[in-house]
Amino acid sequence: MPFPSPLPEPVRFGLIGAGRIGAFHATTLARRLPEAALVVVADPAGGAAERLAAPLGAAATTDVDAVLADDRVEAVAVTSSSTAHADLVIRAAAAGKAVFCEKPMAMTLDEADAAIAACRRAGVPLQVGFNRRFAADFAAAKRIVDDGGVGTPQLLRSLTRDPGLADPGAVPPWTIFTQTLIHDFDTLNWFNAGAAAVEVNAMADALVAPGFRSAGLLDTAVVTIRFGNGALATAEASFSAAYGYDVRGEVFGSSGMVTVGTPAQPAVRHWSGAGVAGPTVRADTELFPDAYAAELAAFCLAVREGTPPLVGGDDARAALRIALACVASVERGAPVRIGEIDRPAEAAV
Amino acid sequence: MPFPSPLPEPVRFGLIGAGRIGAFHATTLARRLPEAALVVVADPAGGAAERLAAPLGAAATTDVDAVLADDRVEAVAVTSSSTAHADLVIRAAAAGKAVFCEKPMAMTLDEADAAIAACRRAGVPLQVGFNRRFAADFAAAKRIVDDGGVGTPQLLRSLTRDPGLADPGAVPPWTIFTQTLIHDFDTLNWFNAGAAAVEVNAMADALVAPGFRSAGLLDTAVVTIRFGNGALATAEASFSAAYGYDVRGEVFGSSGMVTVGTPAQPAVRHWSGAGVAGPTVRADTELFPDAYAAELAAFCLAVREGTPPLVGGDDARAALRIALACVASVERGAPVRIGEIDRPAEAAV
Amino acid sequence: MPFPSPLPEPVRFGLIGAGRIGAFHATTLARRLPEAALVVVADPAGGAAERLAAPLGAAATTDVDAVLADDRVEAVAVTSSSTAHADLVIRAAAAGKAVFCEKPMAMTLDEADAAIAACRRAGVPLQVGFNRRFAADFAAAKRIVDDGGVGTPQLLRSLTRDPGLADPGAVPPWTIFTQTLIHDFDTLNWFNAGAAAVEVNAMADALVAPGFRSAGLLDTAVVTIRFGNGALATAEASFSAAYGYDVRGEVFGSSGMVTVGTPAQPAVRHWSGAGVAGPTVRADTELFPDAYAAELAAFCLAVREGTPPLVGGDDARAALRIALACVASVERGAPVRIGEIDRPAEAAV
Amino acid sequence: MPFPSPLPEPVRFGLIGAGRIGAFHATTLARRLPEAALVVVADPAGGAAERLAAPLGAAATTDVDAVLADDRVEAVAVTSSSTAHADLVIRAAAAGKAVFCEKPMAMTLDEADAAIAACRRAGVPLQVGFNRRFAADFAAAKRIVDDGGVGTPQLLRSLTRDPGLADPGAVPPWTIFTQTLIHDFDTLNWFNAGAAAVEVNAMADALVAPGFRSAGLLDTAVVTIRFGNGALATAEASFSAAYGYDVRGEVFGSSGMVTVGTPAQPAVRHWSGAGVAGPTVRADTELFPDAYAAELAAFCLAVREGTPPLVGGDDARAALRIALACVASVERGAPVRIGEIDRPAEAAV
Repeated sequence: MPFPSPLPEPVRFGLIGAGRIGAFHATTLARRLPEAALVVVADPAGGAAERLAAPLGAAATTDVDAVLADDRVEAVAVTSSSTAHADLVIRAAAAGKAVFCEKPMAMTLDEADAAIAACRRAGVPLQVGFNRRFAADFAAAKRIVDDGGVGTPQLLRSLTRDPGLADPGAVPPWTIFTQTLIHDFDTLNWFNAGAAAVEVNAMADALVAPGFRSAGLLDTAVVTIRFGNGALATAEASFSAAYGYDVRGEVFGSSGMVTVGTPAQPAVRHWSGAGVAGPTVRADTELFPDAYAAELAAFCLAVREGTPPLVGGDDARAALRIALACVASVERGAPVRIGEIDRPAEAAV
Repeated sequence: MPFPSPLPEPVRFGLIGAGRIGAFHATTLARRLPEAALVVVADPAGGAAERLAAPLGAAATTDVDAVLADDRVEAVAVTSSSTAHADLVIRAAAAGKAVFCEKPMAMTLDEADAAIAACRRAGVPLQVGFNRRFAADFAAAKRIVDDGGVGTPQLLRSLTRDPGLADPGAVPPWTIFTQTLIHDFDTLNWFNAGAAAVEVNAMADALVAPGFRSAGLLDTAVVTIRFGNGALATAEASFSAAYGYDVRGEVFGSSGMVTVGTPAQPAVRHWSGAGVAGPTVRADTELFPDAYAAELAAFCLAVREGTPPLVGGDDARAALRIALACVASVERGAPVRIGEIDRPAEAAV
Repeated sequence: MPFPSPLPEPVRFGLIGAGRIGAFHATTLARRLPEAALVVVADPAGGAAERLAAPLGAAATTDVDAVLADDRVEAVAVTSSSTAHADLVIRAAAAGKAVFCEKPMAMTLDEADAAIAACRRAGVPLQVGFNRRFAADFAAAKRIVDDGGVGTPQLLRSLTRDPGLADPGAVPPWTIFTQTLIHDFDTLNWFNAGAAAVEVNAMADALVAPGFRSAGLLDTAVVTIRFGNGALATAEASFSAAYGYDVRGEVFGSSGMVTVGTPAQPAVRHWSGAGVAGPTVRADTELFPDAYAAELAAFCLAVREGTPPLVGGDDARAALRIALACVASVERGAPVRIGEIDRPAEAAV
Repeated sequence: MPFPSPLPEPVRFGLIGAGRIGAFHATTLARRLPEAALVVVADPAGGAAERLAAPLGAAATTDVDAVLADDRVEAVAVTSSSTAHADLVIRAAAAGKAVFCEKPMAMTLDEADAAIAACRRAGVPLQVGFNRRFAADFAAAKRIVDDGGVGTPQLLRSLTRDPGLADPGAVPPWTIFTQTLIHDFDTLNWFNAGAAAVEVNAMADALVAPGFRSAGLLDTAVVTIRFGNGALATAEASFSAAYGYDVRGEVFGSSGMVTVGTPAQPAVRHWSGAGVAGPTVRADTELFPDAYAAELAAFCLAVREGTPPLVGGDDARAALRIALACVASVERGAPVRIGEIDRPAEAAV
């Protein structure tokens, strides 16, 4: 079932960034996906690449350029810190490598445009790590929407609640929009395909760690988006859900609704004098292991078949626009027309 | 279990307004509640009161004053058209009757203040028809919140989706806020007890019946509310849910979450080649029959025991404030500080 | 919605047996059902009838014959101890009263035949208290089955688990079959309409209160039934479910399955560090209040309209046959052909 | 998370039997599990091994002895037709190979004893393919039971419904017990740990394909089991569930219940005018992919660490005893004492 026969030659990866999600992707590439092989891991932090690569049978380096210059490497997985993403995409493309980039692909629209242009110029595929598109339940929801099961979307919702906020002081400003809710913005764009966001209002606060509010922390946010087709959407995030990791979506339209996602898993319930109880999902890697594998498998297929990735630079740019509009909305305390984001100079007038 | 023993003398009701919900309440009062008796029904429309009252064994009149002057009537149920509510509350109070008023109790804050003052002056109990407070599932959710089960509320959600929009041209302006979402505003106030709304942003449109947009119809709305304790809430409504009647809530806080409500009922599932399927609730009177009975039973108890109703004029005023702020927000296309609503003259500057 | 207009004259009831379920039915008849009125309550135990009847505005007596001779009484509700049911049905029928009899209608097939014959002879309607047929979820399941949603039934399941066993020493022998599982036998007969049970195997034990095993207590049982159409069914009961009251059903057939019932209610969930939790139903009167009212309303309708009750003496007899076959199966430690139950003399050979 | 670091040398497998489940396991071993490597596939059918092995990078042979003689092979996966299992286990053990054997491990108790003895003699680990023990939801249920969450088990249920019966004529006699329900018997033994089955009653029929009844087909079965600790269990199977693949369990005890499994997946629901609907699981490889991988990963760990497999020959024998008792029960039309199965000569008297 899962594998074509005969299997094509595995895509040979270099991975840049040996942090938490980099380690997870590296292990998937090296161990779980027959479509992929892990050649080398790069990380500037001393020893980080080595500790990750060695048990996976891959080489390690602190030099990104060594990865880009490595002829064995066909594809680069960018899993570094977010601010370095766009630059690495551009350099990997220039080196002729196919690029899988974790979200967010860029921190500004200029960066995003440059990354997209670089990949287009180099003729390399570019895929962005919006994992929900590859989760079985979200994909099933998308099929229902595409098959007309909800009619014209009118009200949408997407939410992300992370299980905890370990180090509030280490969270860069606006992270809740550019790193967390960017997932939800992509989900909403995907579910409401063909329509673009036209207006955004964001409210956010430091409710989890109020002591860090003055330092710029926003750990709780609610965003309202008006789309060009009239649909109204909410996106919601918190950095600290006591019950675990919670990602859900809802698309309500003229002829129905689809709801997707639940933090309640697996399919077991305990009934006692206290009522009924069940376990919840505690981490993204617990909720989305198959989605993480599937997005990399799809990328490998795109590389081998020469087909366009299912979620690329334009999608990343569209989600980023909404995130940047949220930033502006919070700064102004008012709704923001999304068009202003594309013309920051005019907007500043 | 359900009835005290011996049962007190039933509270004798006059009901004003023989429309859909009036008919439902009249039947409950006359037939289902041992705590209540229905004496008389009034409706100005020719024959409406008579058609409702006769099979219920009650008298009928087209004259409201006859009801208020009727010595047998201890309590008045106000189920007329919304714009008449406040005036009828005031007149019923002046006549010394206990008052159960369907939501919304008033259309302006001045009206609300006058209604509250009238009842206070007359020393009569005033209860408002926020039925969700009496639904078993919402009441269970409230207990969890009150028992600290979610910690400090941070993100709340309440939604109402009606099953259909029969006559878009007959919907008065702003109905989605003053008549539909007012339920959700009360629910949010109730769940986030002790905190008041401080800022509101509303987006709304005519997506169900776009042909009536120019006539002022708003049939789809999303509201974001910031509360004084920092909590952020969304309220959402649509006038046309293909799958029926949908009322749900969610309270997320520092130590947990409570979710409440589902349009899926009853507890039956059909498994076939098409997958799994189940029925949905199609009307408010199908979802909330027990809540409608319970709110009237509670009112009867308040009348007999002399205790304050569980949901009164101040609650109606607090929900109305949010609804009026929504109106202002839509008009301005911007968030509205709730304080402005209390000082319309200043706000207009 | 729920009431015809104009409402017919209420059916006037005499109720015999002021125990737990008798008190519940009396209250429903007196207070909740516009279709019914409660005239008199009879119970031989000193004061029991009086304590129940007085607050309900009904008369009380210790003399059953006084009820049967009362001209105001149109219908008799038999809620006495089970062993007296059949005799009371026969006497009520002889007095020309319509009869609503709690399950079990009889303890032997001879009794059942006599009760059925008596009602037929007197031309009075006879309805038996199989409440699940009137529960919204079970009724929805039945409609799915009748509409062909599962095809030909092949595997069925019905279970009843009571919330506790207060006084094991007071449980008459075989109660688990003749009083508890008789509900499930009727449910299975109903879902598998048109087919009769042909073979039964029962295993039972005293697992809740093993100290009473030697006294004949059976508090846990599993029954397998083979029906004439080949379908195989299981029925299962326990007298002590820690989590409350649990009644569920399942019909699996050639083209699908229907599942019905859950002890998880109402529609609220609490999500916390411990996972997800919700409340459960704790008593039959909590799970089935609407079913209890609906069965009496349906009976009133049958009385007024002269239509046959939806569940009558033949249904009670069919369920009893299975219960008696279970008794024989446990005694023999072997499966029992259901035909033997009809011919006890032959079976004993 | 999923992999120890550094990863041990992969366990090198020879796989015998290139049928459906053999192909699935081969792919898992070769492609999905870093703990395993696939060296060679054997299948007597011309070309079957080659077709499976080639794209997986493994060797192929029609000669089982070549696998057993291959020094590179550390472990043998027995996925041949069921009747050959025990013999292959014995030969693999004699060759000093660790053995993973699909269920059923044996068709008779003598075979089972010989297989167990052979592995013990050779000092090689033996694991049997009872996949549910490695499914996340069943494992969570087991932990609840082991932690005392249900108290003493009193009523258990396990069911298996396969999605379809492609070729009724090709089903060997008693398959429903020895191949399908044997999963459920193991599940029941596992959940009710420490107690052994003492009495079994089985009812079975050809309801899916009645035309094959005379040829000995049994495609629908219900089994009741009495355990030594008094617990009563039902096991239920069908070869044709229109809605897909259905594996569920239930353990009810003195202080609670655990329910596990659902054919409804993934977490998506479609709400429309028809009500609510969702997808169902259609195959074992769709429901249990992670369990299939986990059981092989656990076996690899047992091989590398020298620890006893979590589910071994004794477990297979215990489940087989129940299956054989079911055969006897159907043949006799009566319950069977499980002890008779161990002494077939006496039982035949």
